[in-house]
Amino acid sequence: MSEYIKVPHEIEERSFEIITEELGDKTFPEEIGRIIKRIIHTTADFQYADITVISPTAIQSAKDAIAKGVSIVTDTQMAKSGINKMKLKKYGGDVHCFISDEDVALRAKEKGITRAMVSMEKAIADEKNQIFVIGNAPTALFELKRFIEEGAVKPALVVGVPVGFVGATESKEALEALDVPYILTRGRKGGSTVAAAIINAILYMME
Amino acid sequence: MSEYIKVPHEIEERSFEIITEELGDKTFPEEIGRIIKRIIHTTADFQYADITVISPTAIQSAKDAIAKGVSIVTDTQMAKSGINKMKLKKYGGDVHCFISDEDVALRAKEKGITRAMVSMEKAIADEKNQIFVIGNAPTALFELKRFIEEGAVKPALVVGVPVGFVGATESKEALEALDVPYILTRGRKGGSTVAAAIINAILYMME
Repeated sequence: MSEYIKVPHEIEERSFEIITEELGDKTFPEEIGRIIKRIIHTTADFQYADITVISPTAIQSAKDAIAKGVSIVTDTQMAKSGINKMKLKKYGGDVHCFISDEDVALRAKEKGITRAMVSMEKAIADEKNQIFVIGNAPTALFELKRFIEEGAVKPALVVGVPVGFVGATESKEALEALDVPYILTRGRKGGSTVAAAIINAILYMME
Repeated sequence: MSEYIKVPHEIEERSFEIITEELGDKTFPEEIGRIIKRIIHTTADFQYADITVISPTAIQSAKDAIAKGVSIVTDTQMAKSGINKMKLKKYGGDVHCFISDEDVALRAKEKGITRAMVSMEKAIADEKNQIFVIGNAPTALFELKRFIEEGAVKPALVVGVPVGFVGATESKEALEALDVPYILTRGRKGGSTVAAAIINAILYMME
């Protein structure tokens, strides 16, 4: 059997070394770099170094909110599944995803809209939910934008990284125009693993 | 508010149209195309058209196995979370992920190896588990390779798409050398969303 690294923390350390090496001249402020490198670690896609945008107050706002015990809402079970809930629970927060709830499915069917949209409506009803993580559905991000503009919610952080070909790019452009702390990936790329990586990077820098 | 498509099946249809358009001259046999396009739909990354490798018997073997009610094992909760379990359950199968099990964590700590490796050992103990989906941990794929070579398991399909910088590429090269039905992505790219997309593509083509 061929030899390979089997010790988890060594694998991660070595991965981040390789990423830093291959980024070469592309360097970032410490905390921004930790987020970007964790996204690359998750995707093996260096393009994220160029398309990831972090608003100036986003990281501090998210850290403060997490430290106060706010909860996180995701648009997919996958993003929820990828977030380190043990770390979050230390501060009293939790992760919720309402997409599979029966009331959400029912209302979406009635209105002929996506469950992702209805799940955002449900999310803002509880003011403990202050970090919104959208890794999949542009419709969720557009709906959240509407609630923000109406003053119905004032998020501590919006992670806007929907992936895809219909609306994803536009939904992130809309987020970038908002006066709210955000982390997003311009263009089509993103996804649930990217969304979770961003939140985990913030959780790990709080240790 | 700007207008955007809010009807779920229209969003997906339009996405696949765009992907087919942009693939241009790159065409594939029907079922292979459905897998590759679903991966691109999930990642917005057209490189997957060039790095996805599907062994000749893989799709039919997986469909036959699923129809017989076999279960699927994933290396991460995220991959499990992304697989359409409702569709799978129609045939009697389920999806398992043992990575968070207490006995797995304990044994990994004792041996100083990854939980992903131990989770494969647990997976092959139940012969109902015949489809193995590795989206994250090269160590899981190396361990599964060892079990296959020892004759301890004869999978109906191995989805080998670990992502990353340490061992991922090598683990997939090792899989490609095995005499077993496989679907893999050459090089560093892959991940839990890619893994789930592959299984879902197969489930959807069974309808």
